[in-house]
Amino acid sequence: MQIGMMGLGRMGYNMARRLMAGGHEVVAYDLNRDSVAAIAAEGGVAAASVDDLVARLKPPRAVWLMLPAAITDGVARDLATRLAPDDVIVDGGNSNYRNAVDLAAELAASGIHFLDVGTSGGVWGAERGYCLMIGGDAGAVARLDPVFATLAPGGDPSFGTAERGYLHCGPAGAGHFVKMIHNGIEYGMMAAYAEGLNILKSANAGAVARKADAETSPLEEPQYYRYDFDVAAVTEVWRHASVISSWLLDLTASALAADPNLASYQGNVADSGEGRWTLKAAIDTSVPVPVLSSALFSRFTSRGNDEFANKVLSAMRQAFGGHIEKKEGR
Amino acid sequence: MQIGMMGLGRMGYNMARRLMAGGHEVVAYDLNRDSVAAIAAEGGVAAASVDDLVARLKPPRAVWLMLPAAITDGVARDLATRLAPDDVIVDGGNSNYRNAVDLAAELAASGIHFLDVGTSGGVWGAERGYCLMIGGDAGAVARLDPVFATLAPGGDPSFGTAERGYLHCGPAGAGHFVKMIHNGIEYGMMAAYAEGLNILKSANAGAVARKADAETSPLEEPQYYRYDFDVAAVTEVWRHASVISSWLLDLTASALAADPNLASYQGNVADSGEGRWTLKAAIDTSVPVPVLSSALFSRFTSRGNDEFANKVLSAMRQAFGGHIEKKEGR
Amino acid sequence: MQIGMMGLGRMGYNMARRLMAGGHEVVAYDLNRDSVAAIAAEGGVAAASVDDLVARLKPPRAVWLMLPAAITDGVARDLATRLAPDDVIVDGGNSNYRNAVDLAAELAASGIHFLDVGTSGGVWGAERGYCLMIGGDAGAVARLDPVFATLAPGGDPSFGTAERGYLHCGPAGAGHFVKMIHNGIEYGMMAAYAEGLNILKSANAGAVARKADAETSPLEEPQYYRYDFDVAAVTEVWRHASVISSWLLDLTASALAADPNLASYQGNVADSGEGRWTLKAAIDTSVPVPVLSSALFSRFTSRGNDEFANKVLSAMRQAFGGHIEKKEGR
Amino acid sequence: MQIGMMGLGRMGYNMARRLMAGGHEVVAYDLNRDSVAAIAAEGGVAAASVDDLVARLKPPRAVWLMLPAAITDGVARDLATRLAPDDVIVDGGNSNYRNAVDLAAELAASGIHFLDVGTSGGVWGAERGYCLMIGGDAGAVARLDPVFATLAPGGDPSFGTAERGYLHCGPAGAGHFVKMIHNGIEYGMMAAYAEGLNILKSANAGAVARKADAETSPLEEPQYYRYDFDVAAVTEVWRHASVISSWLLDLTASALAADPNLASYQGNVADSGEGRWTLKAAIDTSVPVPVLSSALFSRFTSRGNDEFANKVLSAMRQAFGGHIEKKEGR
Repeated sequence: MQIGMMGLGRMGYNMARRLMAGGHEVVAYDLNRDSVAAIAAEGGVAAASVDDLVARLKPPRAVWLMLPAAITDGVARDLATRLAPDDVIVDGGNSNYRNAVDLAAELAASGIHFLDVGTSGGVWGAERGYCLMIGGDAGAVARLDPVFATLAPGGDPSFGTAERGYLHCGPAGAGHFVKMIHNGIEYGMMAAYAEGLNILKSANAGAVARKADAETSPLEEPQYYRYDFDVAAVTEVWRHASVISSWLLDLTASALAADPNLASYQGNVADSGEGRWTLKAAIDTSVPVPVLSSALFSRFTSRGNDEFANKVLSAMRQAFGGHIEKKEGR
Repeated sequence: MQIGMMGLGRMGYNMARRLMAGGHEVVAYDLNRDSVAAIAAEGGVAAASVDDLVARLKPPRAVWLMLPAAITDGVARDLATRLAPDDVIVDGGNSNYRNAVDLAAELAASGIHFLDVGTSGGVWGAERGYCLMIGGDAGAVARLDPVFATLAPGGDPSFGTAERGYLHCGPAGAGHFVKMIHNGIEYGMMAAYAEGLNILKSANAGAVARKADAETSPLEEPQYYRYDFDVAAVTEVWRHASVISSWLLDLTASALAADPNLASYQGNVADSGEGRWTLKAAIDTSVPVPVLSSALFSRFTSRGNDEFANKVLSAMRQAFGGHIEKKEGR
Repeated sequence: MQIGMMGLGRMGYNMARRLMAGGHEVVAYDLNRDSVAAIAAEGGVAAASVDDLVARLKPPRAVWLMLPAAITDGVARDLATRLAPDDVIVDGGNSNYRNAVDLAAELAASGIHFLDVGTSGGVWGAERGYCLMIGGDAGAVARLDPVFATLAPGGDPSFGTAERGYLHCGPAGAGHFVKMIHNGIEYGMMAAYAEGLNILKSANAGAVARKADAETSPLEEPQYYRYDFDVAAVTEVWRHASVISSWLLDLTASALAADPNLASYQGNVADSGEGRWTLKAAIDTSVPVPVLSSALFSRFTSRGNDEFANKVLSAMRQAFGGHIEKKEGR
Repeated sequence: MQIGMMGLGRMGYNMARRLMAGGHEVVAYDLNRDSVAAIAAEGGVAAASVDDLVARLKPPRAVWLMLPAAITDGVARDLATRLAPDDVIVDGGNSNYRNAVDLAAELAASGIHFLDVGTSGGVWGAERGYCLMIGGDAGAVARLDPVFATLAPGGDPSFGTAERGYLHCGPAGAGHFVKMIHNGIEYGMMAAYAEGLNILKSANAGAVARKADAETSPLEEPQYYRYDFDVAAVTEVWRHASVISSWLLDLTASALAADPNLASYQGNVADSGEGRWTLKAAIDTSVPVPVLSSALFSRFTSRGNDEFANKVLSAMRQAFGGHIEKKEGR
């Protein structure tokens, strides 16, 4: 079918290509003219402006937005003013699901359908397909089924859509809600691997000298910490039939094989919204999430945001015990 | 090659069968005579006693122990008295790696090799193969390579052993150490999924009545929590090209498909040692593990072990604020 | 000075009495006529309605609201329609500081001042005084200084107000923000004591039988866990010159002296908003708060909200390892 | 009564002086001859060697060790060889309670009593008295009652000893066990304050520019984060009748008054054993301690020990999403 695509960044560009490869007609628009030209060169239709994109689409139209969360709402509202009743706007980005709830209700007043589609798969999606979590009204979801089926990994069409990698999760917001939780879980899994590998990396603590002073707890029983593990090899072996095999582990093993000490990284770990929203949803619904929150806070800490708290601790220790902080380290 | 197998429980029995299928001669012993007979019926050699098992093995012998951690050390020490220099004892169970360090040193005095082999794969290993993490001296490890290669999932022999699912991780204890960390990570991953799914399950909080009283924080903005997610379908869709796809997720989706509300479970979650040892290793080596520890403590809490702490909190709240505890719930 | 007081619950009633004892004229209103009559009997002025309360106050008026957070906003807005420019409304309850930011801006349009005053001290405030954290415009804060000075514990008037127990913390919302953090810290401190005392209570684990099976990790080195601590006596001794002495500890020791096993509590621990808002503020500002969040989640868990997560864990364990959940416990 | 004191560091020196002020005869020994001379100058008895110390004490002797945990055991064992049956050795340091269990049993064979006395109060103990948590056999504890009564803060002798600041907590190890838990709680309380103050410090996040890019979650609703709190004043006001008043808060307010930004600290927070042992005791006894563990791990992280874990996270993010780590920061 025909679909408009606005936003040809890392994700949108690859999705447009996968759609074209699947036989769909993609009308593409992006502020970056080179990206638009590249899609046209591969058989897509170049749009010179938003109005041009709208004009080139046959009603009822479908426009897929693949934009930074910060600008998606504004673009969607502006786009809606140029569309007609029964047209569909899809937000495939990492937006807060609450925006989808609000926007869908707002646009429904003018007969426009708004679908929120959580999209997982990262830079590998072009090849593996994208896992799609879809929210919005059932009619619009059904109309776009061919698009979803192409973007998703696919499989035996006699199976349900979940088995083929896409799912209509519920009404407006449901898609981004499920994607939000997906990312919250992702943070937790990533931290689980990272913490475990950190212990492996430190398992030679008994073989290296550790200063013994009144301020530092000495290592008890150093004879049990004299291992120099090949962390890359360990992650590789775990990929094969262990309980913790996963796609994230595949990527981790590959990264460690290329750079066993990860010397090319500093360890400033960004976070991009969903982890925070997951935590707020848990708080609102009184669900305990100690693991997911710990994973998020570790990222905050990786960027140095624990600094004042640590200074408070050092000040307290000096105040009650006369402990003078050691200035080295970090 | 020929190998003795002591312990024909859930794990040992399946391993014996996989070894025989791979062309090895298995001499089997277990207190349960039926299990021994079953192995014999499939082509194995039945041993009537430990002495008989030793007698039926040609030197240099190799005996694989697949026993509960609590009795492994005792059995190994007793077995060693019946063996000869250059024989090998393998502990494939979930023992503390410290025992392997100690035992290997102790048995080395009589020329007996002790290998610690962390074995992952659970009840599926018979079919998928077992991921093996091996510790001990290199000569003994090399001698048993055919056994490891058969138990592991296998693959192109031109690849390294890690790519085929087994790895000599280091000296005595290294195998169980790596398996310990494996299980620590497993706890963290499991908790990440469980917490995320719990939020999904609670996402209809805005649609159900929640009592508003001074003791309970009301749900803010209930309009954003009106989803009735099909949690089984969500886990299924995540299996396909999402970032959080994993073998654990495969099993979870399958369990939820069979019992969407998991009504057959109470939620008393056991833990079997490695999670605790992982935490102690992190403490000893000063490695922060907020996620792995949270996962372990959630299991303790699932069994009600937070009770006295909660009573202290209720008593404090009554003391400073006159808050009378609500007796319902739980 | 003269002040109106709306809300004569546990907190408001005691505050009205402390104000009268300090020489102020209190005009009191509450839906509960008995509470109003009780204040009148002690020398206050009874108001029969909100309009009557407004009529009995001389301009510029000051009305202190001591109401449940859920209704404060509505009452404040309604009250404002009956007031005149330069009148002051004080919210002394446990409201979200964001409401104060919004309300203060809204009411400023009609010349009415809105102050948010976090009030700590619980049921003991009548006697000890109340710790007051004040937000809003400086002129209105200065005008109510006599009221704040009376409610606070007091002290040498040559000292600053913080030393006497009240503080103008900043513009609108600042008072409730600081009170929110105060309660967030309170949750953390309470949990620290509760967890520590729970270990003391469990320190006889080595003296009691623990079932050893494959599903339960046995207690290693039971000889180190054979203590029957008198937890009440321990909290009492800590009150005297230890580093962890505090008012919360005073209350805890007193509660334990009266009921050493806290048998009169179930351990369903409520939470009333500030802990959640604290966490959200930390998330918004990228501040890691692993301790404060753990304390909040422990309360959620105390009310059984981890149930579905735990069932997921049990289902996973059965799926990969054939572990059958133990049904006893909890 | 007469008592030997070995170890005249920060703690031991002050304790010796408090004992002398209370009318006891202190026979003092330390490798640092100046400290010994200083005690002698204030009325104590100088010992030139361990043998001299033993010779100057009248049987049955009592010797109080106030030494670094790392050397206490060795010194105690050596000292015991020079003592006679019914003599008492007291360990007042921060030793692992397990050592006390072992040592007491070992020395009992030669009739020597070993008491473990957890001592809290820090550098302020000379003035405020010390909170003493005592383990060991009742006879020896009773014999040293005059010493404990003098070191403790004291109070009405008609009260129990807990009310006067010292407590016989149980058999060997009980004193150090209770002190261990005390310190575990201390870590949790300190972290609760530190995290809360860190949020206050960051409450102006909406007033400062924060870069908005795809890698960083933008601050939602910045209008609610425009506070410049006087953190020192806030801690001061909380000291007065708030629920979170405590001695640690007194010290914190004092430190912040002197250095509002704590610019003289780096935030490398040491830990000295008890926090770790507390966690291990919780693990052994299956007690969930999410708050106490988070507090300990924050200290590990303050010293940079999360580095490799963070690099793993950055590597994973690049692998699945093409996210390039931002190199600035920290």
